[in-house]
Amino acid sequence: MDSHNELELQVAVAKVSKYAVSESGDTVETIERPHGGLSIVLVDGQRSGKSAKAISNIVACKAVSLLADGVRDGAAARAAHDYLRTQRSGQVSATLDIVSVDLATRTIVVSRNSHCPVIVVTGPDAALRLLDEPSEAIGIHARTRPVIAELPIVLDAHLVVFTDGLLTAGERHGQSSDLPVFVRDHLQAHRSAPLVSSCPAASAQTLPAFQAGTLADALLARAVELDQGRPGDDVSVVVLSVVTRQAPDAIRRLTVRFPIPVWLAGTF
Amino acid sequence: MDSHNELELQVAVAKVSKYAVSESGDTVETIERPHGGLSIVLVDGQRSGKSAKAISNIVACKAVSLLADGVRDGAAARAAHDYLRTQRSGQVSATLDIVSVDLATRTIVVSRNSHCPVIVVTGPDAALRLLDEPSEAIGIHARTRPVIAELPIVLDAHLVVFTDGLLTAGERHGQSSDLPVFVRDHLQAHRSAPLVSSCPAASAQTLPAFQAGTLADALLARAVELDQGRPGDDVSVVVLSVVTRQAPDAIRRLTVRFPIPVWLAGTF
Repeated sequence: MDSHNELELQVAVAKVSKYAVSESGDTVETIERPHGGLSIVLVDGQRSGKSAKAISNIVACKAVSLLADGVRDGAAARAAHDYLRTQRSGQVSATLDIVSVDLATRTIVVSRNSHCPVIVVTGPDAALRLLDEPSEAIGIHARTRPVIAELPIVLDAHLVVFTDGLLTAGERHGQSSDLPVFVRDHLQAHRSAPLVSSCPAASAQTLPAFQAGTLADALLARAVELDQGRPGDDVSVVVLSVVTRQAPDAIRRLTVRFPIPVWLAGTF
Repeated sequence: MDSHNELELQVAVAKVSKYAVSESGDTVETIERPHGGLSIVLVDGQRSGKSAKAISNIVACKAVSLLADGVRDGAAARAAHDYLRTQRSGQVSATLDIVSVDLATRTIVVSRNSHCPVIVVTGPDAALRLLDEPSEAIGIHARTRPVIAELPIVLDAHLVVFTDGLLTAGERHGQSSDLPVFVRDHLQAHRSAPLVSSCPAASAQTLPAFQAGTLADALLARAVELDQGRPGDDVSVVVLSVVTRQAPDAIRRLTVRFPIPVWLAGTF
């Protein structure tokens, strides 16, 4: 098997808090699926700061622990809704997105309980599509359920999932970003693999390897810029990409980076 | 505040399966702590392949869901032991390590239920220390409890946690690696920050930024090399580093990368 035919999953998460608020009200967690693959859970708790964090934390934990037990995504989303509605008497809402790379069904499953669309770009031509069917936040109404889409796992599939801080960035300043076009332009400029038919092998060498993290960072940087350096809301972005395998090894890798406030540090 | 005084947490996980076994029996999960910080849970299920994976999965899920609820690490480790022992009638063992960056207590907490030591390197002189008190795997005996160490969160603190595939790599071929020395040498060659007293600012520019992922990759590559390209056991490595902040932003980042077997891919 030519290693260039092999695929690699890349997931990148980037998060920033609302300006002058130390704690983001968004929670993002990843969990391995017991039948193969992984799920990413993205929750935006109502309001911001500590109270929002408490909400998004309990919702994400409930969803993650169910997914880890092998519960199907739609049932996990419904259960997270029921749980939040019970805990908070239907007074508090949250948006919930679950994105799963399910190696058992060989699909990418997107479950949305959010007004934010999911941007999907696929194929060598970077065909653009939005998952934007009307969808309801969890926690308030009875029998809320997710809007679910299922996509095949294929080369050059890219999904961008985000909380509404990304959607509304710049609004206070009369500015806005055309997110789908921004994503497609970025992907075309950072193509993961050259077109076999049109690109000579030589030019392939000059293309930098695609990194999902670069797109997540670019989206977050754009939002912060539109908000003139002071995000008006918590912003979280998840990029999930199926690209040509870049390393010849079969290693699974995970990295986490975050700033530690200096007042929390000690001395040996 | 000079941004060079600010700290950054880096966590890197790298995993590879035993040769010719598609599924690693090790499970690594990360979870946000409700009072601030994050925990990493590393479990090595008895034997290898599917049965080991099932074990490590239920242990990791139990620990992660308790930690997400705010349960303290020692209690989560005890509960994971009790749960496995109950589920499998005391017939199946697993090693369990929990490493937490606890922003509430301002410490790094290491809970070991494993015969593998944890390597700790701290300070500008790369002082080496092993957390290697005798410690028992979970799942077999009554009242098993973790050996816990607590370290302050300080600049240039590095912890390396791993499953026994790393420890035993090369043994079949009469080779072995002095892991603590390997780690210290790597850290000295990839210093995160220049010594203020001895390094002129100019030379700081020539040092590449430290990446925990580079150390995790180097350890895994060394193990695979000692096993002559065919790992004799599942190998998982976690590197946790507190380093000088490399980005001026307050962004939290997470990335996951893993190969997708080509037979799992579909077509649009």
